[in-house]
Amino acid sequence: MKKVITSTQNPYIKELVQLKDKSRVRKKTQTFLIEGLREINLAIKGGYTIETILFDASIFTEKLVNQIENISGVEVIEISSEVYKKLALRDTTEGIIAVAKTKDLTLNELHLSTKNPLILVVEAPEKPGNIGALLRTSDAAGIDAVLIANPKTDMYNPNIIRSSVGCIFTTTIATGTSEEIISFLKQQNINIYGAALTASVEYQTIDYTQPSAIVVGTEATGLTSKWLENTTKNIIIPMRGAIDSMNVSVSAAIIIFEGVRQRQLKK
Amino acid sequence: MKKVITSTQNPYIKELVQLKDKSRVRKKTQTFLIEGLREINLAIKGGYTIETILFDASIFTEKLVNQIENISGVEVIEISSEVYKKLALRDTTEGIIAVAKTKDLTLNELHLSTKNPLILVVEAPEKPGNIGALLRTSDAAGIDAVLIANPKTDMYNPNIIRSSVGCIFTTTIATGTSEEIISFLKQQNINIYGAALTASVEYQTIDYTQPSAIVVGTEATGLTSKWLENTTKNIIIPMRGAIDSMNVSVSAAIIIFEGVRQRQLKK
Repeated sequence: MKKVITSTQNPYIKELVQLKDKSRVRKKTQTFLIEGLREINLAIKGGYTIETILFDASIFTEKLVNQIENISGVEVIEISSEVYKKLALRDTTEGIIAVAKTKDLTLNELHLSTKNPLILVVEAPEKPGNIGALLRTSDAAGIDAVLIANPKTDMYNPNIIRSSVGCIFTTTIATGTSEEIISFLKQQNINIYGAALTASVEYQTIDYTQPSAIVVGTEATGLTSKWLENTTKNIIIPMRGAIDSMNVSVSAAIIIFEGVRQRQLKK
Repeated sequence: MKKVITSTQNPYIKELVQLKDKSRVRKKTQTFLIEGLREINLAIKGGYTIETILFDASIFTEKLVNQIENISGVEVIEISSEVYKKLALRDTTEGIIAVAKTKDLTLNELHLSTKNPLILVVEAPEKPGNIGALLRTSDAAGIDAVLIANPKTDMYNPNIIRSSVGCIFTTTIATGTSEEIISFLKQQNINIYGAALTASVEYQTIDYTQPSAIVVGTEATGLTSKWLENTTKNIIIPMRGAIDSMNVSVSAAIIIFEGVRQRQLKK
C-alpha cells in the first residue's frame, strides 16, 4: 500500500526538517536532502544512494517518480503540499525531494583519475552561494577535483546543493584541514598556486599544464599565511580599475579557464 | 543654521524614498541616491554632481562629511536613524546618503578614449546583481566601455549601484536599443563577438587585440537572433562538465580576461 504523509507533525517529517536545517544531524545520520528531479538524477549519476523519495502529488506524479532510473527498492512517499513546503527551499517549484546517503569526503577517499591533475582548492569558504558558484565553474571546466580546506559547513548544506545546480554531485570533492590538504598536494608533487593580493606573479605567466592546484581564499581576507607560505608561487590577477577586488568565484573562474586554455593548446 | 530632518513624513524625505524605489521618478527628476561614503567618493571621482548629502548622526559625523572632497556648496542635512532606515538599502551600516544628478548615458554621449577598444555589451540584463557583477569585472579588467542593450531598469537602480560596489561610477557606460548599439559598433568598425550556445567557435581562438565587443545575453535564453545574426563571429566557452551552463558574469569574465591577456601579451 502506498504511504501517504499529510501532517507536518509526523515524526519522520520532523526528522527530515532537522536534516534540512542542521549540519550536525546530517553528519550523525549520514543522510541529506536533495530537492528537484534534475538534482536527484545528477546525484544518482554521481553514484549517490537514494533511500527515500517524497513527492507532492499536486505538483509531481508517481508515474514520473517511477521513471527515475535506478531507484527500484527505494521507498516512495506521497506528501501533502503543506509537508512539501516544510521540506523544500524553493517553495513549490519542484514537488520532489529525496533522502540520500552522504559520501565520505575525506582525502583518504579521494582518487584522482590522472597523474597530471588541475585542482581547485578553496580555503574556509563562508557563503554557500560562493561554494555553489565555484563548483559550477569547476564542473564546466572539467576540473579533476575541488578540495575544501576548513569548511564552515558540510558540503550537503541545501543551499550549496541549490546554488551548485547539482554540480556538487558531478564534481570530485574532498574536504580536510589546510594542513591535510597541503601535505596531500606536496606528497603528490602537485604545484600549489595561491591567489594572493600582494608580492605575487601575474596568473597568466604560470604553466598550468603541469600538475597544478589553484588555491583561493575568502573575498574579505584572502588566503591565510599558512597557505601563502606553502605555495609553489603566489599569483595575482592584475587589476586595472578603480576597485581592486573581484568576487571570489569570478577570480577563480578566470584562473581556472586560463589553465584549461593552456592545457587544450598543448594537446 | 544646520538643517535637521527627523520625521519620515517630511515631504522631501517622501520624495527621496520615491527616488530610491522608482525608476520613473529617477528619470523624471534626473537624480538618484548614492549610499555609502566609498560609493559617494567614487561618484565624485567619476564626475557626478552631488546635490545634497544626508547623514545619520548616530553613525556618521558632520566633520567626516566635511572631509569629502569637492563638496563645497553642497547642502548637508542631518537625519534621524528612523529617516535613514527609510532611505537606505543596507540598514544602518553606512550612515550617509547623497542625492546626485544622473548622467546622460545615451550612445551620443559616449566618447571612447581609444581607437582600439575592448567593449562589453550586455543584452537585456534582468537581475541588478548580474549587472553589478559585470560592472565589477569590467572595472577590474579596465574595459573601455560597457554598453547595455535594452535594459530592463535604469542604471541608477540602487541595487545595481550596491552590487557594482561603486564600479557604476568608474566604468564608461552607455545604454541603447540593440539596433542602436549594433549600428554604433558597425560604424566604428568594431568586431562583434556574440557569446552563443551553438554553432560557434571557441572563445580563445579569437583575436581580441583588434577593436572588439564581447556580447553576452541572459543566462536563461542567451542572445536574441538580432544579435547572433549581426556578429562578426559567435563564440562559445567549451563546457567539459555534466551541466552546460555558467553564470553570465562568470562567463563574461572568462572571455574578457582572455581579451586582456592577449592585449597584454602583444604589448
